[in-house]
Amino acid sequence: MIDQRKLPHEEVYVKLYTYEEVAQAIETMVIRGAPAIGVAAAMGVALGVQKSKTIDSQEFLTLYGRLYQTRPTAINLKWALERMKKCFEKALDHDQPLSHIKQKLEAEALDIYTEDIETNQKMGANGKQFIKNNSKIMTYCNTGTLATAGYGTALGVIRAAHEEGKKFLVYVCETRPFLQGLRLTSWELYKENIPQKVISDNMAGSLMAKKEVDAIFVGADRVAKNGDVANKIGTYSLAVLAKYHGVPFYVVAPTSTIDLQCPTGKEIPIEERNPKEVTHFGGKPVGLEDVPVYNPSFDVTPHELITAIITEKGVFDPIYGRR
Amino acid sequence: MIDQRKLPHEEVYVKLYTYEEVAQAIETMVIRGAPAIGVAAAMGVALGVQKSKTIDSQEFLTLYGRLYQTRPTAINLKWALERMKKCFEKALDHDQPLSHIKQKLEAEALDIYTEDIETNQKMGANGKQFIKNNSKIMTYCNTGTLATAGYGTALGVIRAAHEEGKKFLVYVCETRPFLQGLRLTSWELYKENIPQKVISDNMAGSLMAKKEVDAIFVGADRVAKNGDVANKIGTYSLAVLAKYHGVPFYVVAPTSTIDLQCPTGKEIPIEERNPKEVTHFGGKPVGLEDVPVYNPSFDVTPHELITAIITEKGVFDPIYGRR
Repeated sequence: MIDQRKLPHEEVYVKLYTYEEVAQAIETMVIRGAPAIGVAAAMGVALGVQKSKTIDSQEFLTLYGRLYQTRPTAINLKWALERMKKCFEKALDHDQPLSHIKQKLEAEALDIYTEDIETNQKMGANGKQFIKNNSKIMTYCNTGTLATAGYGTALGVIRAAHEEGKKFLVYVCETRPFLQGLRLTSWELYKENIPQKVISDNMAGSLMAKKEVDAIFVGADRVAKNGDVANKIGTYSLAVLAKYHGVPFYVVAPTSTIDLQCPTGKEIPIEERNPKEVTHFGGKPVGLEDVPVYNPSFDVTPHELITAIITEKGVFDPIYGRR
Repeated sequence: MIDQRKLPHEEVYVKLYTYEEVAQAIETMVIRGAPAIGVAAAMGVALGVQKSKTIDSQEFLTLYGRLYQTRPTAINLKWALERMKKCFEKALDHDQPLSHIKQKLEAEALDIYTEDIETNQKMGANGKQFIKNNSKIMTYCNTGTLATAGYGTALGVIRAAHEEGKKFLVYVCETRPFLQGLRLTSWELYKENIPQKVISDNMAGSLMAKKEVDAIFVGADRVAKNGDVANKIGTYSLAVLAKYHGVPFYVVAPTSTIDLQCPTGKEIPIEERNPKEVTHFGGKPVGLEDVPVYNPSFDVTPHELITAIITEKGVFDPIYGRR
């Protein structure tokens, strides 16, 4: 996989040989983006089983558990692991030889990979109607090829509208503290020749006040049963600003991001990450070395702030259902 | 003056010997903060006149003009220069010797300096009532000793509440792209032993949603006649979020920041600065080298989003007048 921490300056591909290496790649954000870490975790399982000489339920649960706890918020990780677990149990039930189990798990991981790309293309087709010709839109964090198996969620919708020949400008929020917008989304848009302007996140409101933003497209790390959405920190502020200014706010997420076990956004666990993500750049402190920092990686946007959730199965109003 | 670009890691004091050096220090943000650049510009005038052998109106207007055009948004700069000009004209009127003019201008610049500190202390006294004991407040950009001749505007109110013995936590917005919050406000609070947590700007909304913010205090670069306020980019987003969550939003500014010639916020010129402020850290690009960037240094918050403007002359409701 490409090491996303080094983008856009270095395109370094790392090869991972063990499930532990995959777990660490997810934890340290070599790979990130809810669908992408789901796919990576599935491949981590296949890899772990591949390497094992005597895979049994106990050993499976160890590697499954290791990958399960890498990051808490994105549900796609759990969804993909659950799917791998079911595949493993089914293969075990039939009392198949070890080579068969390995084959089945590898095939399942590859299915998750290819299905994710297809899903994204369907979301693109479903969502591109919301990008008008000659409009200005805004996006947040990175939801593109890098965040998925390919094509992207919110960025997939943008890609689909571009492929259709529509002209539009994308305001790219830099997305502090990890700068996924400035580093990754900007790079993907550049490669596609889609016109863009990068802004710091705090400029979004004044752009909306100037009627410079016709629609906003974001991804999701988990959608609760009631339609509340956990996504990259800052999404909530953007949604409130959109509501205040009457700008449509679209969440683009595959149905694998929906967690029906989670009644509302309140129950979604929010990861808090290393304070150094805020205080340091390139390993060097910008502010005081040990200043107290609050660094939640996600926030929850209540469903009433969301115009629609665009999935591969259709477009849904989070309050009134299918459009 | 201290070179604010190097804080908090190096406390480097630079000595400026010509008005041109002062002008460049303002332009390159060696010194920043509306009241501070007003004081610096006044001293720049005194310095320019001091060095001159044959100061006349033409020469005065040259150095006045050079300093006047250093930065467009903060009105304190114009206010201080206007005061120096009046002082010069008065000294000229009386047909005084050159040494007398030099003395008068030096005294006037020093008056502006000491008056600014007194003004800030008065604002602190007027505003500290709005910080409750055991509360959590939020501040934006840097409005402290560094942004003024001393004590600070919004940070002066925080200082005054702290001196009174109140306990409270300050959420410091890092303030992208120049990071005045992370680098400067955090450093000032640390020196005063005032408890703080630094956040990236996009976390402000979710903190308000969690009822973690009891009040917000910001400074101002220019207040229009109708009470609209130009301040550091991001202030507007914060004000909208405060309105949405019912959090009081206070602007702390001396009356020298009020521009009665400016009917509304729409007429306030907004400086756009170098894109590299957004794309680079420590001289190195974080994102693509030449990606298009929108980098306005300020935005305008309409008066209806402001709970009160705290000045040295009292506390004013921007709609209903003196409280």
